[in-house]
Amino acid sequence: MVVPSLIERKRDGSSLSPGEWAALVRAYGTGEVPDYQMAALLMAVVWRGLTPEELSELTRAMLESGDRLRFDGWTVPRVDKHSTGGVGDKTSLILAPMVACCGVAVPMMSGRGLGHTGGTLDKLESIPGFSTRLPLREAETQVRQLGCALFGQTPEIAPIDRRLYALRDVTGTVPSVPLIAASIMSKKLAEGLDALVLDVKTGSGAFLPGESQALELARTMIGLGEAYGVRTVALLTAMDRPLGHACGNALEVEECLLALRGEGPADLMAVTYALAVEMLLAARVESDPAAARARLEATITSGDALQKLAEIIEAQGGNPAVAEDPALLPQAPASAVFTASRSGVVTAVLPRPVGHGVILMGGGRTRVEDAVDPAVGFVITARPGDRVEASQPLATIYARDDAGLAAGASALAEAIRLDEEAPSPLPLVSHRVTSTGTQVLT
Amino acid sequence: MVVPSLIERKRDGSSLSPGEWAALVRAYGTGEVPDYQMAALLMAVVWRGLTPEELSELTRAMLESGDRLRFDGWTVPRVDKHSTGGVGDKTSLILAPMVACCGVAVPMMSGRGLGHTGGTLDKLESIPGFSTRLPLREAETQVRQLGCALFGQTPEIAPIDRRLYALRDVTGTVPSVPLIAASIMSKKLAEGLDALVLDVKTGSGAFLPGESQALELARTMIGLGEAYGVRTVALLTAMDRPLGHACGNALEVEECLLALRGEGPADLMAVTYALAVEMLLAARVESDPAAARARLEATITSGDALQKLAEIIEAQGGNPAVAEDPALLPQAPASAVFTASRSGVVTAVLPRPVGHGVILMGGGRTRVEDAVDPAVGFVITARPGDRVEASQPLATIYARDDAGLAAGASALAEAIRLDEEAPSPLPLVSHRVTSTGTQVLT
Repeated sequence: MVVPSLIERKRDGSSLSPGEWAALVRAYGTGEVPDYQMAALLMAVVWRGLTPEELSELTRAMLESGDRLRFDGWTVPRVDKHSTGGVGDKTSLILAPMVACCGVAVPMMSGRGLGHTGGTLDKLESIPGFSTRLPLREAETQVRQLGCALFGQTPEIAPIDRRLYALRDVTGTVPSVPLIAASIMSKKLAEGLDALVLDVKTGSGAFLPGESQALELARTMIGLGEAYGVRTVALLTAMDRPLGHACGNALEVEECLLALRGEGPADLMAVTYALAVEMLLAARVESDPAAARARLEATITSGDALQKLAEIIEAQGGNPAVAEDPALLPQAPASAVFTASRSGVVTAVLPRPVGHGVILMGGGRTRVEDAVDPAVGFVITARPGDRVEASQPLATIYARDDAGLAAGASALAEAIRLDEEAPSPLPLVSHRVTSTGTQVLT
Repeated sequence: MVVPSLIERKRDGSSLSPGEWAALVRAYGTGEVPDYQMAALLMAVVWRGLTPEELSELTRAMLESGDRLRFDGWTVPRVDKHSTGGVGDKTSLILAPMVACCGVAVPMMSGRGLGHTGGTLDKLESIPGFSTRLPLREAETQVRQLGCALFGQTPEIAPIDRRLYALRDVTGTVPSVPLIAASIMSKKLAEGLDALVLDVKTGSGAFLPGESQALELARTMIGLGEAYGVRTVALLTAMDRPLGHACGNALEVEECLLALRGEGPADLMAVTYALAVEMLLAARVESDPAAARARLEATITSGDALQKLAEIIEAQGGNPAVAEDPALLPQAPASAVFTASRSGVVTAVLPRPVGHGVILMGGGRTRVEDAVDPAVGFVITARPGDRVEASQPLATIYARDDAGLAAGASALAEAIRLDEEAPSPLPLVSHRVTSTGTQVLT
């Protein structure tokens, strides 16, 4: 294999053969292909893209670089949900226990905060004692016993994806639909799933803000999933404002506990139910959306879903009492109300400044080795379209100290726009994409 | 400086500021920017190109990463010629002593064989004892004393160019007009020149075969040269067949010695005179091309140019007697005549198979550490358009052994095409490009 000539062919717009992709990924794994050649190739892929066949082979090679969850002989359907990332995007913690109460197993491998977005692992780790570092064999056992495990990518899962992701992060090669799809799907295909529901975010807070790129990513991932025998469906959902009120790790867990008692914000619940209904349909335990929705609602009213989350927390070393008493979660020592500087209409609550604000207050990372302060963040009650008066409360800031409060206020001042025009926020769920077509839902 | 965001900006088609290019090259020099980030950036440059301002700053930063020749206070005009590389392209060894006999100094820093092309340094080193490794200060002294020095890029000259070139070679980022121009000009601008004549090759044996890319490269290098106060002019010359008869290091030196006696092949002399005339005009020691040509011819008929080459050889440790007795050059132990397999018209003598044939016989490198056999190569007398009979001699192969003769014959069989149609070879000199415009010469 002459690596420069492979790079040249991709650079010039040709495609590499399946065997070439497999050999490249293997040689990158052994160190025979150095980072500088892979970096040039990745930039050529950002430029020229990948054919469906190339994408499939790259994903396969990344998947096969590691181990996977195995549920051989177990007949319970297994479904996961994956989000492309957002601010206040906490649906996983609500829908995983709900779906697990409906006879569907959820082996959910999640990630950490990335850029301005939060990460499910960081949120879970705000629960005292909770461990997301489950060895694969333990995760399999817990999924069989409780119907759900909430854990992080272990070193055995798609190790080449971990290295490629780190390289892409520092070489300007992140925003490529096929590279994003390969990275996500190489991990999701390692979960031993029957079906997968994708939450593809659109709007200014999404990594790919535009609708057409979001649709392309959705279709690309669906094609990959279906090619590997995993029924895959995607919803495009709004990330032009944070989802729900809470942004920040423990604050978001608290909002999820409220949601599991039936007290979740309307926008958060709409997206959560939409995704959870798709999970039951894809798992084929329900065939009618209304019936699926009713079954999911019953897990809330019965208290079963909250109880399921408590069991999962306990199994993973956390304090299950938080399910009944959210005050056991880490509490920020300082808080302040953020008020409107003028009267007007809330024209926008921009997710990126909100996400960066949480990071500045210590609730996220600027470097991979940074510790995360679980208690800090925002509860933003103002929504786009609200008419407000000067000095009216728009949000509460939770911080470590006065400097954190000031940083949080400054971020909210940038995020929350007041003007006179009526805003036109994106529909919460705009498209449903399957392997057979795209349905516009608005 | 946040390197990933600089890469992202170039990837997205924006340009970097002069200060950013300077900082990038400096940080690459210190190792702060690793090869993998530079490789991704180089591929983004292949994709997006560079603005003239970016190119100028990148070239400046590469130039300023090292030392340069200094001729402060010396009033003799200094001119060099640079070729983009070809097969049988040996004009440097003829025109440098000719021009040096006309009151113009030629501080000529050359390169080694690259890909299928030969290199001036390799040719010079076939002269017994000749050293191309002149320290900069010695090169300056020799130029002042003899009007010419023929030497290689020292570690002090544009060291960042050396590292970037090696990185480009293995990351598929060679064929970029601005990167080629920056690499060439960062070295040429270190020669302390008043003027520079560029020989930009076109045709299948050129690195950029197409006329439009050759013109773009010529204009780009002229723009850079003029921006740095070096009068720069380019000729586009034919590399759809080897230049002259000899291809191979000692064989080419021998052909140059013949040329300096007035016995050079017509095509080689036409290109050599065209370039040398431009050198005298650019040096402003002549203003009329015919007068310049006559002055150059006189250096041959008087024997002065041959004598000048002997002096240069002696100054650089070589045996000056080769000038009078080419048999002192290394001689190949085996030779064979290559004949026509059929009657017909020579429709092509393809430079790439010829160049690769010389390498296969040991006369060039496949890896940078390879030793070069100076004696091997070809003397190809067949020219495109010749009508030949079956079994008529077309070339002589000079090799180390029978295996070399076989490899050479196989290369010539691929290179020399016989058919019935009349070929249409490129004009030897097709365009003259200056800062004020382009003149088509045919």
